[in-house]
Amino acid sequence: MQEFTVTPWEVSGQVDYNKLIRQFGTTRIDGALRERMVRLCGGDEPHHMLRRDFFFSHRDLNLVLDDYEKGKGFFLYTGRGPSKAMHIGHLVPLIFTRWLQDKFKCNLYLEVTDDEKFLYRREYDWKEVQKYTGDNILDIIAVGFDPDRTFIFKDSEYVKNVYPLLMRTARKITGSTVKAVFGFDDSTNIGMSFYPAYQAIPTFFEKKRCLIPAAIDQDPYWRVQRDIAEGMGFQKTAAIHSKFLPPLQGISGKMSSSAGQETAILLTDDEKTVKNKINKYAFSGGQATVEEHRRLGGNPDIDVPYQWLDILFEPSDAKMKQIHDDYKAGKLLTGELKSILIDKVNGFLKEHNTARKKAEKTMEQFMYKGKLAKSMWERTYE
Amino acid sequence: MQEFTVTPWEVSGQVDYNKLIRQFGTTRIDGALRERMVRLCGGDEPHHMLRRDFFFSHRDLNLVLDDYEKGKGFFLYTGRGPSKAMHIGHLVPLIFTRWLQDKFKCNLYLEVTDDEKFLYRREYDWKEVQKYTGDNILDIIAVGFDPDRTFIFKDSEYVKNVYPLLMRTARKITGSTVKAVFGFDDSTNIGMSFYPAYQAIPTFFEKKRCLIPAAIDQDPYWRVQRDIAEGMGFQKTAAIHSKFLPPLQGISGKMSSSAGQETAILLTDDEKTVKNKINKYAFSGGQATVEEHRRLGGNPDIDVPYQWLDILFEPSDAKMKQIHDDYKAGKLLTGELKSILIDKVNGFLKEHNTARKKAEKTMEQFMYKGKLAKSMWERTYE
Repeated sequence: MQEFTVTPWEVSGQVDYNKLIRQFGTTRIDGALRERMVRLCGGDEPHHMLRRDFFFSHRDLNLVLDDYEKGKGFFLYTGRGPSKAMHIGHLVPLIFTRWLQDKFKCNLYLEVTDDEKFLYRREYDWKEVQKYTGDNILDIIAVGFDPDRTFIFKDSEYVKNVYPLLMRTARKITGSTVKAVFGFDDSTNIGMSFYPAYQAIPTFFEKKRCLIPAAIDQDPYWRVQRDIAEGMGFQKTAAIHSKFLPPLQGISGKMSSSAGQETAILLTDDEKTVKNKINKYAFSGGQATVEEHRRLGGNPDIDVPYQWLDILFEPSDAKMKQIHDDYKAGKLLTGELKSILIDKVNGFLKEHNTARKKAEKTMEQFMYKGKLAKSMWERTYE
Repeated sequence: MQEFTVTPWEVSGQVDYNKLIRQFGTTRIDGALRERMVRLCGGDEPHHMLRRDFFFSHRDLNLVLDDYEKGKGFFLYTGRGPSKAMHIGHLVPLIFTRWLQDKFKCNLYLEVTDDEKFLYRREYDWKEVQKYTGDNILDIIAVGFDPDRTFIFKDSEYVKNVYPLLMRTARKITGSTVKAVFGFDDSTNIGMSFYPAYQAIPTFFEKKRCLIPAAIDQDPYWRVQRDIAEGMGFQKTAAIHSKFLPPLQGISGKMSSSAGQETAILLTDDEKTVKNKINKYAFSGGQATVEEHRRLGGNPDIDVPYQWLDILFEPSDAKMKQIHDDYKAGKLLTGELKSILIDKVNGFLKEHNTARKKAEKTMEQFMYKGKLAKSMWERTYE
């Protein structure tokens, strides 16, 4: 068994997701739970990320659905650590979150953690982080959330409204806890050690239960929240966890924009760059020669273009099955598979960047003036 | 030698101030430095707290005076951890700070640490701390600062304006540092461990050098600031340290309003209470009987009423000398000495509470609308 590491700051090795579920103490999403979600959101097909087991694990999702059925409702919370260059992997949890908001018509709080990024990346100055933050928020908005049911906030800006609650939360968390949960030690700066308190705050924004869609590397934060929430008079947060979008080079680790541009498709890549990157770097499960491929077929399980289509770009199960079967049978060549992906990615980016352009106009609404945002600026949390 | 403890949260035992200077690595204020201050503030007598060695130690006070002489100027910073009931000891550094502001015509930043108090006193809820904070601010204002040169702020309110700088400061301080300096351990909550970053912030408010008048128990915070300031492009803060006002029961530890009401004169005590407390609890250096006292005389060095007059209530050196000599000679009885103090304290409290009443009207100016306060709300520190 290959070794792997999953922390909020590092994902490396080929992740054994079953092992991770045991390590983290989360629960697998099974067929019954998936079917229950389908039923509750009006019988529509569940999002392909859920259908195809990409969102694969949860905490208390069943309780969230109970609350929904009883008419109590729930709310969504996810976040983003602003980065210099966003890549398509960063959009994965956001796309799924949008789907949840669409289906369940609920409020969404989106925390942009400019403070944590600044504390962790000591080479950045504050202005740099703020620039990335503004850029990233446009990409987030482009995903298509409901402007009256979504509040996007920067930690540094909203801090005054949550400061009393932040202190109340911090008072409940010891140094031992953050050492044990996050692997901090005495050389960790006091900002980093303090920060986990802030990441818990949005789970307390409503009296309803909170559901957090995010990659599973963020789960340690939710464990801390779940340890302290009830003692503070709140509910334990629920979570729904995704796997990681594999980097171009192969299905271990996760896509990273800081690890070198050849691992990721950036949201700013043009058509030619996308084509070149995929053709040059995307790890293929195909055979070395066309002849061999025709004879032996490809292996979709380790083929990055296939995985990306499956996870992100091809919602049709029928089409995926066709691709899968053709690829395995050697009818579909590596170059052809890559070409399908290139078209999909370029189509996706074109649409994304059109939406991003429009986001400049709606940013104000998501952050300050929309129905939810406005009400959030009018209150203080104690 | 009796053991003693001096931390920002505890002062106990009879403090050996010479030993403390060596332990903390500060410098004694000598005659030459005192004379220099006198010269610089226009030849007026230095405040009796300085003259009588109550403000006894410093860091870089000479550099502050250099800057002042060169016309660069300096600014003042002190603070207050809001408490349920303020006592006269709490006013000591404030009274001296006011004198410095009067003489040197400089800006003063006054940090009210509602967050730290809440983090440390886990039995308080946020509303309680806010109530004490508002009450304490009135008592602070009653001391008589310049409303256009003073900015009084609550940590929880001003946090948004300093948050980027707070992160920059926190990024420079490790867990090891706060453990070593403040005696924290892994059971300390992450809010407390983070808080020292905030207490450093006001030292960065101006490009000038900062001078902090405060009791010496706060010095550990300044040590942390001095370790990181220059690496952040700021100047090391200077400090001028006072001893502690002894509690009624005797000259060890410091006055505390939480240790039981009989150790302290509260600012809300009425004339009768003051009289009773001093007569009943004030530790006397006098003899057991009048006859013995007449024969042997009293000991002013251990006599709390004498010490309070010396530190706080009797600015005239001639009068203090008379009291000293008469008491030592047995001419002045314990009851008579106490009676002098009672009159002084009651006169002081009457004046203080008149000023406090007026403070309700000027609070807005000190916190939001005065010249300095207004300019502070218009800026953000990175």
